[in-house]
Amino acid sequence: MKNFTTLQWKGDIDGCLELTDQRKLPAQFITIQCKTPEQLFDAIKTLAVRGAPAIGVAAAFGICLAAQQLDKSKLSDAVRRIEQQADFLSKSRPTAVNLFWALERMKKTAHDFAAENPGAAIDDLRQCLLTEARKIYAQDVQMCHNIGINGEEFVPVGGSVLTHCNAGALATAGDGTALAPIFEAQRKGKKFKVYVDETRPLLQGARLTAWELQQAGIDTTLICDNMAGALMKDGKINAVFVGADRIAANGDAANKIGTYSISVLAKEHKIPFYVAAPSSTFDLKLQNGSQIPIEQRPAEEIACFMNVQIAPPNVNVYNPAFDVTPAENITAIITEKGVIRCPTEEKIRQIIV
Amino acid sequence: MKNFTTLQWKGDIDGCLELTDQRKLPAQFITIQCKTPEQLFDAIKTLAVRGAPAIGVAAAFGICLAAQQLDKSKLSDAVRRIEQQADFLSKSRPTAVNLFWALERMKKTAHDFAAENPGAAIDDLRQCLLTEARKIYAQDVQMCHNIGINGEEFVPVGGSVLTHCNAGALATAGDGTALAPIFEAQRKGKKFKVYVDETRPLLQGARLTAWELQQAGIDTTLICDNMAGALMKDGKINAVFVGADRIAANGDAANKIGTYSISVLAKEHKIPFYVAAPSSTFDLKLQNGSQIPIEQRPAEEIACFMNVQIAPPNVNVYNPAFDVTPAENITAIITEKGVIRCPTEEKIRQIIV
Repeated sequence: MKNFTTLQWKGDIDGCLELTDQRKLPAQFITIQCKTPEQLFDAIKTLAVRGAPAIGVAAAFGICLAAQQLDKSKLSDAVRRIEQQADFLSKSRPTAVNLFWALERMKKTAHDFAAENPGAAIDDLRQCLLTEARKIYAQDVQMCHNIGINGEEFVPVGGSVLTHCNAGALATAGDGTALAPIFEAQRKGKKFKVYVDETRPLLQGARLTAWELQQAGIDTTLICDNMAGALMKDGKINAVFVGADRIAANGDAANKIGTYSISVLAKEHKIPFYVAAPSSTFDLKLQNGSQIPIEQRPAEEIACFMNVQIAPPNVNVYNPAFDVTPAENITAIITEKGVIRCPTEEKIRQIIV
Repeated sequence: MKNFTTLQWKGDIDGCLELTDQRKLPAQFITIQCKTPEQLFDAIKTLAVRGAPAIGVAAAFGICLAAQQLDKSKLSDAVRRIEQQADFLSKSRPTAVNLFWALERMKKTAHDFAAENPGAAIDDLRQCLLTEARKIYAQDVQMCHNIGINGEEFVPVGGSVLTHCNAGALATAGDGTALAPIFEAQRKGKKFKVYVDETRPLLQGARLTAWELQQAGIDTTLICDNMAGALMKDGKINAVFVGADRIAANGDAANKIGTYSISVLAKEHKIPFYVAAPSSTFDLKLQNGSQIPIEQRPAEEIACFMNVQIAPPNVNVYNPAFDVTPAENITAIITEKGVIRCPTEEKIRQIIV
């Protein structure tokens, strides 16, 4: 289904990470190459690569870039340097937990390797880290596939689904999270429509999701975010599919700003509301969504468009990148390990841990 | 308070209608002059002048422009020509009833004048029509003032209000409808904040409302439409003020797309939701909101921004300009004649008729 590459490691331990530059889509389809952790940090921060799972995979390869900078020092010093660079990369964005999850896994890989192979060469450590990053990549592809299989039954035959932001192939190494059930339903020959919220301020819906769905030949209609309620009232939406950037132990889910409003509108209109996310999106240390840090982004993202000022100069702007949807507004969380209906901490721990 | 002119008749019966071109704000503050009904038609259709009350006032002056084109024919022919031109202007936009209300009033003025003054000259008819249009203008200014007085008590001291689209001075001849209570509260020295929805696709909130409030020295914060729910959940909104383009007999109110969603979010968070509109906005012939025609606007308004394509080419777009908020979601309708709490047909008829 996917006819482009969101991110790809090119070469061996001395390779680099190639990314589709999502800031330019759909007007331009260009790739950029990250050769240092600093370049990758900027790519994540400025959204050249975005989407919680894709950020996690990219960060794992970021540790491979960090490993290239290690000199021929002691293995223990090398591990300490890897940990420093993981801490650096972890500061690129605050909300998506997959970033921290992937970096923790890479740190542990380096640590375990050094402990088990005290006499190994730095190149052996590099190889071990690249193997682990590739495993994370492959698992992400498989995760998307399984979410698609697990969520496909919720795509209503002959109906319409709404999605917000981009939780598609561009947000992952594979087919996406929220869009995976939609792509799977398409593969099975189901007929349905998708309404896509444009997703202000950065228009990931208009630029990325509408493009992905159109590429796949799916019947796609673009709307402004403020139109979803009117569509629901008119009976035009039968299900909502969104992704998540972090899910607390009780099922509260942080996702792109605007997701919470949609969940309230779906509840009002008795429309099922599905969150599709891998198990790596859960942060079971957090009791509930109030503990999820919400990234605040620059005012210019709202006040300017393509360098043109669209609001009066110096107006105050509030620009949170995410909001939190409470578990009680979520019909089910679709993961690669199974579907969690009416999510509670107990049900989540049964599936995820 | 108002330090600019939304629309203004320049000169006498051979004058013209000067408009602030709202398509250019806030980057450019320029005025345009409409000298024919056709020019005014285009100005209304392309939103150089917008806002239900302002459209009504502009259309009344449009009849004065039509009267300038009358030759020295019989008075009855002149009245028929005025009626034709009123029908033409009525097709400029379909939803706001103030347009039809003002045109009906001008047609009746022409008709009554001809019936009562069968031997009068065409210039006398022109003078009579200009006098009536000026009366509609003056009544609009007074209407705004009275809505401000009637609604000011609902602006929460030390709190924050949310508004959507522009129902301010730029939408009327006076201080506005939804913004009138806010300007009045400011005059009374109340301290409060206003959150402004940017209002996609045409950004009337970002371009017009934020600008108006900033000019008035009011504490203003711009947000994207999809952020309102998260703000409400965080306890940051204490009241919602919006305008209306048409209100049915039962209190169902059509307003800018996105208003319905806000009303559901306000209900969910137990936040009062006020609609401020003049009595000319009521269409008591319509039993409920399902009978209000909703204008569909061009796809390019969403898919392009300043001539730059922001969505994939040929993507389907759904672009309704308005939605309908059911009466049960409205805490009160604030009119120039009084406040209608928990609106019902009976209460509306008591105040409006």
